[in-house]
Amino acid sequence: MKLLTFIAHNEIRPGVLDGGTVIDLKAAGLPVGEEGDLLQIVRGGDAMLERVREAIDSPTRRTFDLDDVRLTAPLLAPSKIIAVGLNYIDHCKEANLPVPTEPVLFSKFPNSITGPFDELSWPESVTNEVDYEVELAVVIGRRGRNIPEKDALDYVCGYSVVNDVSARDLQFANAKQWDRGKSLDTFCPWGPYIVTRDEIDDPHKLDVRTVLNGKEMQKSNTKNLIFNINQIIAYASQGTTLMPGDLIPTGTPFGVGFSRTPPVFLKHGDVCECEVEDIGRIVNKVNLK
Amino acid sequence: MKLLTFIAHNEIRPGVLDGGTVIDLKAAGLPVGEEGDLLQIVRGGDAMLERVREAIDSPTRRTFDLDDVRLTAPLLAPSKIIAVGLNYIDHCKEANLPVPTEPVLFSKFPNSITGPFDELSWPESVTNEVDYEVELAVVIGRRGRNIPEKDALDYVCGYSVVNDVSARDLQFANAKQWDRGKSLDTFCPWGPYIVTRDEIDDPHKLDVRTVLNGKEMQKSNTKNLIFNINQIIAYASQGTTLMPGDLIPTGTPFGVGFSRTPPVFLKHGDVCECEVEDIGRIVNKVNLK
Repeated sequence: MKLLTFIAHNEIRPGVLDGGTVIDLKAAGLPVGEEGDLLQIVRGGDAMLERVREAIDSPTRRTFDLDDVRLTAPLLAPSKIIAVGLNYIDHCKEANLPVPTEPVLFSKFPNSITGPFDELSWPESVTNEVDYEVELAVVIGRRGRNIPEKDALDYVCGYSVVNDVSARDLQFANAKQWDRGKSLDTFCPWGPYIVTRDEIDDPHKLDVRTVLNGKEMQKSNTKNLIFNINQIIAYASQGTTLMPGDLIPTGTPFGVGFSRTPPVFLKHGDVCECEVEDIGRIVNKVNLK
Repeated sequence: MKLLTFIAHNEIRPGVLDGGTVIDLKAAGLPVGEEGDLLQIVRGGDAMLERVREAIDSPTRRTFDLDDVRLTAPLLAPSKIIAVGLNYIDHCKEANLPVPTEPVLFSKFPNSITGPFDELSWPESVTNEVDYEVELAVVIGRRGRNIPEKDALDYVCGYSVVNDVSARDLQFANAKQWDRGKSLDTFCPWGPYIVTRDEIDDPHKLDVRTVLNGKEMQKSNTKNLIFNINQIIAYASQGTTLMPGDLIPTGTPFGVGFSRTPPVFLKHGDVCECEVEDIGRIVNKVNLK
């Protein structure tokens, strides 16, 4: 299933997609997150997903045309965003950073979340080196700690697409802690859906791609991840409780802007598309006015 | 006022201290956070703090003896914890790291939060180099972005004490991103209260101190902060929305364990006390069984 969060009649609501039709899960009586989003549904685990399936099949379902609603990010306030850096060898090389021996984890603060088709924006007085990074993202579906690699996918609710927007000048300043440069408002556009894990045969065989103003800038496949999803979840949960709704962008491949000659940074009017095969595509325009 | 969150009759509730008496703010009809904590009260701003004052003075107030309740962290699920690193010159020197020219920001994930008198615990298979760091912490009271330095304290709800517990072996591994080593479960004990800002004449004139097993290990004063609270809030809010309840530990002074010869790391049975003058003291015992 494709779970989503949308705005209709000025209200944020959880929904699910059926072809081009959005089914209103609030109207179906499913629990609504504090933000109006999918969080309570994700927290409800497999039993709740069963109720979503029933809502799709219900003769009394309340629907909207997908074209008539605005999508927000599927979850607006996850407990945490644990991002993985340097997780494709060709990206480590272009960044001139060593290939890591264990996953490199950092944070994007939740204020960075924005919708899959919303505008990107930042104060030009703060950064002039904003870059794109397409990533397959994992949404955690079950609370867990010290999760074994072999069981890790049982803790996944589903998959989504993140553009891990990054201000390179901030990322590599001040003791080189990346979080600030990764966490400006609008720096985590994601969606358009959480595609539930039952729909994805193999999350390690998906093309990932960035297209900037119509030109392909990144193209790889999740088979090239240095640390796969099982390893990331096992590692990130060592001594650290993962919560339902936690978002884990799994890293970006070769082709980012700052490693190019000359460097390519996002500017006013740019249109950046990030796509993961079988999951979806997000499209964000830069608006600096 | 000293705002707190406590457990009574197996329920988490917001409260406020009046001498040795806890006043139950749920019973007083004030809004309760999703976690049972103070979040809705903090979000309510000055108008809500006025209602807390009225609850203290109410003849029908419902009370508990402070000794009869267990305190949890004042806020259990803030939107973000933005921690400041390397913010005392003598600590930069002992850590062999350059004195920064701008604040160094990193993240503690909210799963790390634990109560002011709760036990610290971690898997010994994950880390053997766990260290203490006393810090004055700021709790944000108003949503804000691009906050000017001169107005920054208007965005503060109050002050608290954080032990920024840190696994040094994890902190300095893997591209040296600090977040993982700062974010294991129980690595952010804090409280015991949020002391509202009207009670603190000058937050830049407070002694901070760590006592480990009865021996003083850290002793400094917030006048020694490299970047003061105004500067931290202004900097952290550049292009980044701060939310009510966001927690900002402001950095630790000289005296941490890993810089000592021989190094001192926390071990089973240790009792670590972190104290900030006029704010409070938290006491956490290490339990590795």
